[in-house]
Amino acid sequence: MTQAQQALDYVRGNSERYLSELKDFLTIPSISTLDENKGDVQRAAEWVAAQLRSMKMDNVQIMPTGGHPVVYGEWLGAGKSAPTVMIYGHYDVQPIDPLELWTSDPFGAVVRGDYLHARGSSDMKGQVVASLKAVEAIVRTTGLPVNIKWLVEGEEEIGSEHLGEFIKNNKVLLASDFCLNPDAGMMAADKPTITTGLRGLAYFELKVYGPDKDLHSGLFGGTIHNPAQALIELIAGMHDKNGKVMLPGFYDKVRKLSKKEREDFKRLPVTNKEIIAMTGVPALWGEPQFIPSERTGARPTLEINGLLSGFTGQGSKTVLPAWAMAKISCRLVPDQTPEETMKQMKAYLKKNAPKTIKWELTNLHNAGAAITDSNSAGVKALAQALETVWGKRPYFRREGGSIGSVVLLQKYVGADSLLTGFGLPDDNVHSPNEKLHLPTWYKGIEALTHFFYNF
Amino acid sequence: MTQAQQALDYVRGNSERYLSELKDFLTIPSISTLDENKGDVQRAAEWVAAQLRSMKMDNVQIMPTGGHPVVYGEWLGAGKSAPTVMIYGHYDVQPIDPLELWTSDPFGAVVRGDYLHARGSSDMKGQVVASLKAVEAIVRTTGLPVNIKWLVEGEEEIGSEHLGEFIKNNKVLLASDFCLNPDAGMMAADKPTITTGLRGLAYFELKVYGPDKDLHSGLFGGTIHNPAQALIELIAGMHDKNGKVMLPGFYDKVRKLSKKEREDFKRLPVTNKEIIAMTGVPALWGEPQFIPSERTGARPTLEINGLLSGFTGQGSKTVLPAWAMAKISCRLVPDQTPEETMKQMKAYLKKNAPKTIKWELTNLHNAGAAITDSNSAGVKALAQALETVWGKRPYFRREGGSIGSVVLLQKYVGADSLLTGFGLPDDNVHSPNEKLHLPTWYKGIEALTHFFYNF
Repeated sequence: MTQAQQALDYVRGNSERYLSELKDFLTIPSISTLDENKGDVQRAAEWVAAQLRSMKMDNVQIMPTGGHPVVYGEWLGAGKSAPTVMIYGHYDVQPIDPLELWTSDPFGAVVRGDYLHARGSSDMKGQVVASLKAVEAIVRTTGLPVNIKWLVEGEEEIGSEHLGEFIKNNKVLLASDFCLNPDAGMMAADKPTITTGLRGLAYFELKVYGPDKDLHSGLFGGTIHNPAQALIELIAGMHDKNGKVMLPGFYDKVRKLSKKEREDFKRLPVTNKEIIAMTGVPALWGEPQFIPSERTGARPTLEINGLLSGFTGQGSKTVLPAWAMAKISCRLVPDQTPEETMKQMKAYLKKNAPKTIKWELTNLHNAGAAITDSNSAGVKALAQALETVWGKRPYFRREGGSIGSVVLLQKYVGADSLLTGFGLPDDNVHSPNEKLHLPTWYKGIEALTHFFYNF
Repeated sequence: MTQAQQALDYVRGNSERYLSELKDFLTIPSISTLDENKGDVQRAAEWVAAQLRSMKMDNVQIMPTGGHPVVYGEWLGAGKSAPTVMIYGHYDVQPIDPLELWTSDPFGAVVRGDYLHARGSSDMKGQVVASLKAVEAIVRTTGLPVNIKWLVEGEEEIGSEHLGEFIKNNKVLLASDFCLNPDAGMMAADKPTITTGLRGLAYFELKVYGPDKDLHSGLFGGTIHNPAQALIELIAGMHDKNGKVMLPGFYDKVRKLSKKEREDFKRLPVTNKEIIAMTGVPALWGEPQFIPSERTGARPTLEINGLLSGFTGQGSKTVLPAWAMAKISCRLVPDQTPEETMKQMKAYLKKNAPKTIKWELTNLHNAGAAITDSNSAGVKALAQALETVWGKRPYFRREGGSIGSVVLLQKYVGADSLLTGFGLPDDNVHSPNEKLHLPTWYKGIEALTHFFYNF
């Protein structure tokens, strides 16, 4: 019996307890963006720390930051010749509104069929527990063949606001060869996936002010510039008819895709039909000269995340609103930066905003874009682990979301992230009815167990 | 002592009681659009009926409609040779949100300096009480020289939804030579005003649907048409760069202004500076070939009254929203109709909405535009009354708002409306901190008293 098989036997023998512990974790409403959940976020950190202590990790600490704390733990017994693997996770979750669209309590952690339903089940408490349980199985059987360090943060869903400072201040403690990050999901239950690129983010709030109070639209309509009208005209002008973003210089630093890269994208097993079925839209949309996986992986975007102005209740009220607000975010690709995007947005507004209104732009959060070298030892160990469990070579793709830690660990610790995960595209992350596919989750625990023996 | 002087002495001798009764009326939160205020709306109707009974009107009734009731009362003792004057009013008021912007309780009816502060003080409970108190003074002194009929409705602020059917079903009861309607305000405290034209209204809710749930903007942004983006592009296309409305055929029936009409508009005592000071905007806006009073009086508009989509709370959430909504209304001028406007809006959407989203258009309420003959006996009697009190000829203008009753009374009873009133442009009607200028209100009671003796 190989070492890996001993650990896998332990995984299989403890699968019910593993699920029960995940459910326990999911009942904690650790919504990092809401002040009223601050105590819950702290409880989730304590839950992770208790797990690390129970599997005899050393130096387990809940370390303060300017916001929610980071949970740290380590086991360095494999010696200096063995690699040091950081394992990244986040214990915070997205808000749950609109609550009325959930079919069960977001923090009820109910199993229906193959799925476990809860906010955070896929993004990413399920992935954190998969990592914990793979390591537990190894620790309880053969012992770890590599050194490991845990970095589990509580601010991923609000842009990892204080993680940069934390990593910068703890470079020695966090020194690692690379970082395993299972927050990047997979393409389908039968398609193990390694993500080699991530988009960055620049998130803005744009407010347009018109009259100093709501006015009667009959008395003033036609001679006062409606701020909602001014706002939507400004935003409409941020795209051309083909979906190209019109901020000045927006594409200047975007890397051109090579022939090889475009072939990789074409080989990815995603059909337009599948995306349509998954989202319920009548048809896909986007830059016509790129295919959908290129558009979400290697092309930058500008999206409206929220709109608010005037009267939005039932029925009619004839106001000319005093102000209008939009949340707007850009997904960025190498080598764009959030700082330059902010400058481009400001330049656009300065050039295009009419004199009949006032405007205010706030930068709410930023994340850099990243690309990982797909020929590294870490990527090879991970690819082999996934192939062992799924019986096929994993797919290599670039992902549309952004993960702040990836850029920060590259910048301050010099560690590339190995991006994978066992969340599926229809898990409803950031949406009502988030869920986790349990058969895939169990496979994921096994793959992560293999991974540590592949060095 | 003339008859009018006897009545005016009574007005002056009872001014404190008049104000106290108005305050009493203003404490009733008769918001017609909100279900939870239904009982308050009924109480306001009863308050008006009690006033009519107390001044010995005959046949006083609170008459049911499909919605809020109409208060009716009459005095027909002047005989068949005397004219019959209908007096129109509404006892309902606008909602009060955003409540946090009020400096005192909207239903507290507090006097500060020359102003009485309350929702409905200007629009139009103050005007209803001015009419009641002018008639009371005449009834208690000389007796009425004309026949009168009262029509006080409770649905003006929600588009007089059931008034049309009510008037149609009560043509004989309501038969009148013309209708005094003091809901049209005046241009300034020293500028008595008669309004000879009103804009109509077609109010829509436009909803755009994209994916069947909110999506992660990183995973799908770039390949799914954001419904907020689609909505704002559709609305942005409804105007050209000069503020011209682009619905197909929108201007086809708009009456061209004659040279004489444009001269009347130019003579109106409103400066751009005053409108800017009143509203707090950086600059005026609108069709460059028309002056502001033409733009609000004789030109149609298309306004956004409300916008809602996605995440609108504090901070950032990276959603690609499932839907987006706009409240949009058109102010109409003769000879546009709401029905044709609805058709034009639908035609525009059918032509311009992309195949990547679904849309739904709801017509929330309608009102026709109207023009009154400024050479009629009624307008002359009113102009003379205003001149007697203010010492100058009134200004004749067209107003930007819409008053459903005006069109309905023309259509079913054949009665033109005499539009005047004692509300001022900065009274904050439909806005927080609505107020009534009391010295003007008292002058208004005197003017209405004179009016009834001018036949």
